[in-house]
Amino acid sequence: MFIKGVQMTEIAIVGGSGYTGGELIRLLQKHPKAEIKRITSRQFNQTPVDKVHPHIRESNLVFEDISPRNLDVDLVFTATPHGASMKIVPEILETGSKVIDLSGDYRFNDIATYEKWYDIKHTSPIEAVYGLPEIHRQKIKKGNLIANPGCFPTGAILANLPLSKEELVENIIVDSKTGVSGGGVNPAPVFHYPNCADNVVAYNIVSHRHGPEIQQELGSFSNVKVSFTPHLVPVIRGILTTSHSFLKNFDKNDKNIIKEEIINIYKKQYTNEPFVKILDDGEIPTLNSVRGSNFAHIGGFEIDDNGRLIVISAIDNLVKGASGQAIHNMNLMCGFKEETGIDSYGMRP
Amino acid sequence: MFIKGVQMTEIAIVGGSGYTGGELIRLLQKHPKAEIKRITSRQFNQTPVDKVHPHIRESNLVFEDISPRNLDVDLVFTATPHGASMKIVPEILETGSKVIDLSGDYRFNDIATYEKWYDIKHTSPIEAVYGLPEIHRQKIKKGNLIANPGCFPTGAILANLPLSKEELVENIIVDSKTGVSGGGVNPAPVFHYPNCADNVVAYNIVSHRHGPEIQQELGSFSNVKVSFTPHLVPVIRGILTTSHSFLKNFDKNDKNIIKEEIINIYKKQYTNEPFVKILDDGEIPTLNSVRGSNFAHIGGFEIDDNGRLIVISAIDNLVKGASGQAIHNMNLMCGFKEETGIDSYGMRP
Amino acid sequence: MFIKGVQMTEIAIVGGSGYTGGELIRLLQKHPKAEIKRITSRQFNQTPVDKVHPHIRESNLVFEDISPRNLDVDLVFTATPHGASMKIVPEILETGSKVIDLSGDYRFNDIATYEKWYDIKHTSPIEAVYGLPEIHRQKIKKGNLIANPGCFPTGAILANLPLSKEELVENIIVDSKTGVSGGGVNPAPVFHYPNCADNVVAYNIVSHRHGPEIQQELGSFSNVKVSFTPHLVPVIRGILTTSHSFLKNFDKNDKNIIKEEIINIYKKQYTNEPFVKILDDGEIPTLNSVRGSNFAHIGGFEIDDNGRLIVISAIDNLVKGASGQAIHNMNLMCGFKEETGIDSYGMRP
Amino acid sequence: MFIKGVQMTEIAIVGGSGYTGGELIRLLQKHPKAEIKRITSRQFNQTPVDKVHPHIRESNLVFEDISPRNLDVDLVFTATPHGASMKIVPEILETGSKVIDLSGDYRFNDIATYEKWYDIKHTSPIEAVYGLPEIHRQKIKKGNLIANPGCFPTGAILANLPLSKEELVENIIVDSKTGVSGGGVNPAPVFHYPNCADNVVAYNIVSHRHGPEIQQELGSFSNVKVSFTPHLVPVIRGILTTSHSFLKNFDKNDKNIIKEEIINIYKKQYTNEPFVKILDDGEIPTLNSVRGSNFAHIGGFEIDDNGRLIVISAIDNLVKGASGQAIHNMNLMCGFKEETGIDSYGMRP
Repeated sequence: MFIKGVQMTEIAIVGGSGYTGGELIRLLQKHPKAEIKRITSRQFNQTPVDKVHPHIRESNLVFEDISPRNLDVDLVFTATPHGASMKIVPEILETGSKVIDLSGDYRFNDIATYEKWYDIKHTSPIEAVYGLPEIHRQKIKKGNLIANPGCFPTGAILANLPLSKEELVENIIVDSKTGVSGGGVNPAPVFHYPNCADNVVAYNIVSHRHGPEIQQELGSFSNVKVSFTPHLVPVIRGILTTSHSFLKNFDKNDKNIIKEEIINIYKKQYTNEPFVKILDDGEIPTLNSVRGSNFAHIGGFEIDDNGRLIVISAIDNLVKGASGQAIHNMNLMCGFKEETGIDSYGMRP
Repeated sequence: MFIKGVQMTEIAIVGGSGYTGGELIRLLQKHPKAEIKRITSRQFNQTPVDKVHPHIRESNLVFEDISPRNLDVDLVFTATPHGASMKIVPEILETGSKVIDLSGDYRFNDIATYEKWYDIKHTSPIEAVYGLPEIHRQKIKKGNLIANPGCFPTGAILANLPLSKEELVENIIVDSKTGVSGGGVNPAPVFHYPNCADNVVAYNIVSHRHGPEIQQELGSFSNVKVSFTPHLVPVIRGILTTSHSFLKNFDKNDKNIIKEEIINIYKKQYTNEPFVKILDDGEIPTLNSVRGSNFAHIGGFEIDDNGRLIVISAIDNLVKGASGQAIHNMNLMCGFKEETGIDSYGMRP
Repeated sequence: MFIKGVQMTEIAIVGGSGYTGGELIRLLQKHPKAEIKRITSRQFNQTPVDKVHPHIRESNLVFEDISPRNLDVDLVFTATPHGASMKIVPEILETGSKVIDLSGDYRFNDIATYEKWYDIKHTSPIEAVYGLPEIHRQKIKKGNLIANPGCFPTGAILANLPLSKEELVENIIVDSKTGVSGGGVNPAPVFHYPNCADNVVAYNIVSHRHGPEIQQELGSFSNVKVSFTPHLVPVIRGILTTSHSFLKNFDKNDKNIIKEEIINIYKKQYTNEPFVKILDDGEIPTLNSVRGSNFAHIGGFEIDDNGRLIVISAIDNLVKGASGQAIHNMNLMCGFKEETGIDSYGMRP
Repeated sequence: MFIKGVQMTEIAIVGGSGYTGGELIRLLQKHPKAEIKRITSRQFNQTPVDKVHPHIRESNLVFEDISPRNLDVDLVFTATPHGASMKIVPEILETGSKVIDLSGDYRFNDIATYEKWYDIKHTSPIEAVYGLPEIHRQKIKKGNLIANPGCFPTGAILANLPLSKEELVENIIVDSKTGVSGGGVNPAPVFHYPNCADNVVAYNIVSHRHGPEIQQELGSFSNVKVSFTPHLVPVIRGILTTSHSFLKNFDKNDKNIIKEEIINIYKKQYTNEPFVKILDDGEIPTLNSVRGSNFAHIGGFEIDDNGRLIVISAIDNLVKGASGQAIHNMNLMCGFKEETGIDSYGMRP
């Protein structure tokens, strides 16, 4: 389809009624080179989008309950639960569409790891590219199936990639604080306002599925071992990741020099990355600086007398941690400028 | 200045370190036809913008302490406190720049009203256009000085304009609930997190300065009398305005017909307005549908057996209630398409 | 049963797993004259109380699924949903226990009103006393079945009782802001954290069941007509009620005298009430002053030039608006000092 | 003074206008054996307490600006800032009153540590007892000057005491999440609602003054080294402390046995402690289970495959982390039952 003389890439969103679906619509509706042609939902079949997403008014989009085989578009975002994606992704790929899957179904190189942590038999393993552009950009450009990273892994991998590459540490403790939208759109006691407001809830403290995902990516560069614990905080969006690790061969007297070197390593690693910002020495990332944006802020580089290094990252779990990163992947796959449609600043306050 | 072959309108922001200043920067940095040339702050002179607004990174903008006479731009936003604006606006106008003032200094047709409610002597009264495009669009296009409306008045006037025009009611009770950013960037006990979280605070319950501003605009169409009471709610952004009024000549048996008629009057009034959305019968506006956007949602039209009519509006106080509306005014003054740079959807959740 | 030489009144709580059940336990466990003998829950049968209410540790209380006929106690609190209470209350009364019912089933003098607003056939109408001690104290003392008031009615009736008694106004607009715990313990989209945080939601804007309940009590003193609209605000507990009404025979010049008189009427009305506090002229009630307590604060008495009077009340919806008031009723029925076990101050901040 | 035949211990609170002062009043007003005789504030001299603490109504307490020498009571709580306490504590002790100081001035055995971390010269070092009853109960009973512990140290020391005593680990990483009331009653940008709502802010990430305090107490039992990082979360009250440490001589195959042993060690350590609750295997402490109470919940004992042990504690920073613990100390010093006046359950939701 052409809009004002521009050929638009045609898009379908499968499972568009949740939060990541809502973000895909919010962002894609303003994307100059892509157009949502279909949006599916079994539950809301034939419902106008603004009855489910009341902020997206006058879009003319209507949910349809349509078979994956009949989407007939250039690229499909599957914003479906894990377990559901594996049932439709192969079919969509067969129609010739590219797919960006937002579930966990295609994130693991090793199917056994997936099956252990998700406690599901994987019925249709296909090779996919792990869609973190900062690591796999070239493969993403050529990929037909992209496994969009988990929200915690996005923040944790970016915060620790240089440490693993340079083999500066042996163990990393990732203590993450996430907003409640990370739990999705379906109500549950733990997300019930009176239960999670004015509260902090640690959960799956050694057993969260995003742990092995972080381990897979960071562990591909060195023998580093990752220990991951997430916390639910009374925040709508955002993940603040506090990484603690003890530096190898630490000498207290060199603390300042080491810190400076580490900041330089980070700046070098991410120098050409459009969405990763390394903060200045002394600056600490905050959630409201990235709220609603596709940016990842990394900073807070400090070392204490025990040789513990802190690195902190902040992302919006629904944008850089999900839908924004998915559009970044689309831009790469379609040959668009990487920032297209996802270059807004965060909303602060 | 030309950017990629487009002649950019040159902009200055006076007082850019507060929340409305931050929003002007966030939005104008992505505006295709306007460019921030100068941004002033006495307190943060020579400080890069990202040290004050950490979400606006790599902008190259630096605060300057520069005289109003030397701004040398096409248009100036004065995001200065009331009392301060009147000291600089006349000087800026003399240099030939247009001015959009975000303070209360130029909002009143009657200086005595201003002086009574603001308890300040007005030292430089100049004629200005009240910058609510939905009422004063044609005058704004030709204006050199625009008094950008208050946040409460924006939500309250839009919610009640048709009622006054059609003389359907005699009294309107405006019960508003505002987010805390409406109080500005300066800390105070009432805005201290432990005091205002998990709390609701009614304030200035018969004496808020925005009362006479609402009265001025609504009262220009009929003899309607406005009673206004604001509440602070634990929300960052947004104003929900609940308007209660008793219908003249009400007959309980005609309730449904009257309601339908009223919705039609609203739809007609705002049919061509790009930023005012009249919701369907049964839909009620919410803050998170307009968060971060320049849209005003109006809905919740219901009548009870006592003849009381409810109308509810929702806006983002920092966007439609301040900086977004200011850019809307700029677009009108400069002949740009009205929606330019301020057409993003709200951020939900 | 005797504890340290004191004969304890034996209590059962039917439906103890929700928020009002939790509050009854929290307060009764420290009550010097009452002892929880049984606590029922079908869902949590045989579960220790601290697995459901993790703040109540080491209580030895265990949920039981036990027939209402077999409770064998002096007094029963039925913290059951409307429609469920009417099925068990008559049976419990037959066993000789007194009952305080926290549902809406027995609050209406006129069954037709109940059936219209609750859309349920009332299968077992019995005469009950409306359990607002500030109006019905003497009847409560002698009652066997108390209908504990709704949360909104508690705040709204107390705020307007003197206005109706003295026939000062014809119409009252009650604009209430409630915390989310008022919706109960069961998750639903409207109470899902990402949906209701940073948001304000008006609901049932002319059709809330608590409207006719307020009308019943206030209308028993005069012909006053009540228009009621509730809002959900991002607060855990608390109801702030803003009452707007136009004074009869208002003369602007007498504004201050009238205000003074009204404050005096309120002070007189509530002078001996242990739980109602009339604030001084200029003071406005806030939710965090009553959080967790059984107090109702009433204040904010102001009159504007249009003759509109504002009165504001603040209560904790789970205490004065539910479980605390129920214990107040128990104290009256059992001849205890009224304040026993419910005299804690609010928790601020 | 005698009240109803009970001789009341006479109390003064110096600096009663802040949050810890407010909590002392809230709790002491209901204490059966202690009576507030004087409450001082320079700023609010002659102001009734309810104008500053509007939840404490009808107390007859009035702030006075009175010299420390003239307090004339049995026991004084100094709720004064660090640096201010050292100027008045010696004088008060000379009058014969016992003192419980809530500042940091007397918490350190080594003055040099105090002076380094607080950047203040200590002008009047006196020996004090560190007022954590779970470690120093016997000394507290006999003490005249108690240094009430910091809020973070209270949660962190209790969570890790058995690990240090049993020498199970070498390093402990303490990642704490605190409510905003921990920052006190004075407004500042970081505590401004629009800045800290919907946000998480790591601060003083290797330089917080409570780090050396935790190190002092835990380090008195072994050579353990503590690395501490605090985070501000949008919560009014409460500190959730997540402790990460790698177990010495860890064998993956013994994970479950080790976990069981560790839980037993904790249960044994705290078996007679009235305010420390060790949760069952699988239970994780939450802030809202202890909100408003003097209880510390410890749980979340898990070990991952890397040998990292997690232990999590939850306290209310204003009660167990400040005023409640101070009253616990008072009870010990005065020979009262330890739980007197501070045995309320947490307020949930």
